[in-house]
Amino acid sequence: MYGKFLVEGDKLVRELLASNVKTDAIYALEGWKNANNSAKQEITLVSPSDLERISTHDSPNQVVAIADIPKHEAADLNLAPALYIALDQIQDPGNAGTIIRIADWFGINTVFFSEGSVDVYNPKVVSSAKGSLFRTACHYVNLAQLFEANKALPVYGTFMEGENIYKTELASQGFIVIGNEANGISQEVAGYVTNKISIPNFGKAESLNAAVATGIVVSEFKRK
Amino acid sequence: MYGKFLVEGDKLVRELLASNVKTDAIYALEGWKNANNSAKQEITLVSPSDLERISTHDSPNQVVAIADIPKHEAADLNLAPALYIALDQIQDPGNAGTIIRIADWFGINTVFFSEGSVDVYNPKVVSSAKGSLFRTACHYVNLAQLFEANKALPVYGTFMEGENIYKTELASQGFIVIGNEANGISQEVAGYVTNKISIPNFGKAESLNAAVATGIVVSEFKRK
Repeated sequence: MYGKFLVEGDKLVRELLASNVKTDAIYALEGWKNANNSAKQEITLVSPSDLERISTHDSPNQVVAIADIPKHEAADLNLAPALYIALDQIQDPGNAGTIIRIADWFGINTVFFSEGSVDVYNPKVVSSAKGSLFRTACHYVNLAQLFEANKALPVYGTFMEGENIYKTELASQGFIVIGNEANGISQEVAGYVTNKISIPNFGKAESLNAAVATGIVVSEFKRK
Repeated sequence: MYGKFLVEGDKLVRELLASNVKTDAIYALEGWKNANNSAKQEITLVSPSDLERISTHDSPNQVVAIADIPKHEAADLNLAPALYIALDQIQDPGNAGTIIRIADWFGINTVFFSEGSVDVYNPKVVSSAKGSLFRTACHYVNLAQLFEANKALPVYGTFMEGENIYKTELASQGFIVIGNEANGISQEVAGYVTNKISIPNFGKAESLNAAVATGIVVSEFKRK
């Protein structure tokens, strides 16, 4: 399957149909088909055992759809001033999906992924993004080139030795860079960080989960 | 196996050995055994295929240990004034582990789990808690009884209609209640919430991941 991705389960498929993402095909059990016959999209009836074979879930939930991966214009690197999230080698699909959901909650429309990050159309990302994937532009880019092309925008990154985020003046525009789960921000990308920040550690954990750190940092930007 | 749990991988087993949690047995490949012979605990040599059989991971990392589930005193319900996290029917092991890690980062020593929450000694919780499980007291209790026994402590819970957390005066002592991933805070527990709070929504996502919401809320309590 090229340029397509799988969307699984009643709620997510309904979010897909309500979005601008193009749906290619829908495979559903009889009950779902009957309840959703008003959908513009044709619905193909399948048996529970068919559904199990199509789905990546152990206990699939009524319906699976095939959607077209949105063809975002080859990302224009000259960005309008706004707040953006840039993920540097995020590997865990649950983290990627959860971060897309954070972006959507906080009104951030675009998330950049470094080349080599997890594929956002991986079924686990799709499921943990909970529909936010359909409303968020996800671009794979060379982050160094992105920052080079937008020198006017500050680049915030979390580092152990960064300034206490609770006491830092945070801009309303710029990039929030989140590093790899195990290794943090890569050396190349670190060279572009203009503002090193940190979430104060009050206890003994070595680090926070990458998605949790993203949530806390983005919340700090938006609370002002 | 009763009263025991599995700890997998080099880093986590070393954190286990450095903690107060009692280790029962260690099964390791030769390289790990040789590098860790100074451990007080006896190390049993196993082959890579043995390790694969013991481990729950697809590609196990050098070592697996069996530890004793800490026997916390039957939770004394009369608590010292401090900040506590109370989880109401959290089901996802990744969320539970991530929340324990958040507690450990922010210096919260005790997390309460409602009866019916995920088992914190489930291997996925152990792995996502990243060693914080060894430093955090996790108690399963009836949350209603817990709140009844500690009427002096405020109970904070997130609700759509709650007060904007950025503008709320937050106490330095009390309970932060986090509800179930799909259904939020249960009706019974909601009756004990003294302070309804909310994280403002700037976009279109319906909700945040439970662990991310915990991180943002706890950060708000600690930033003051």
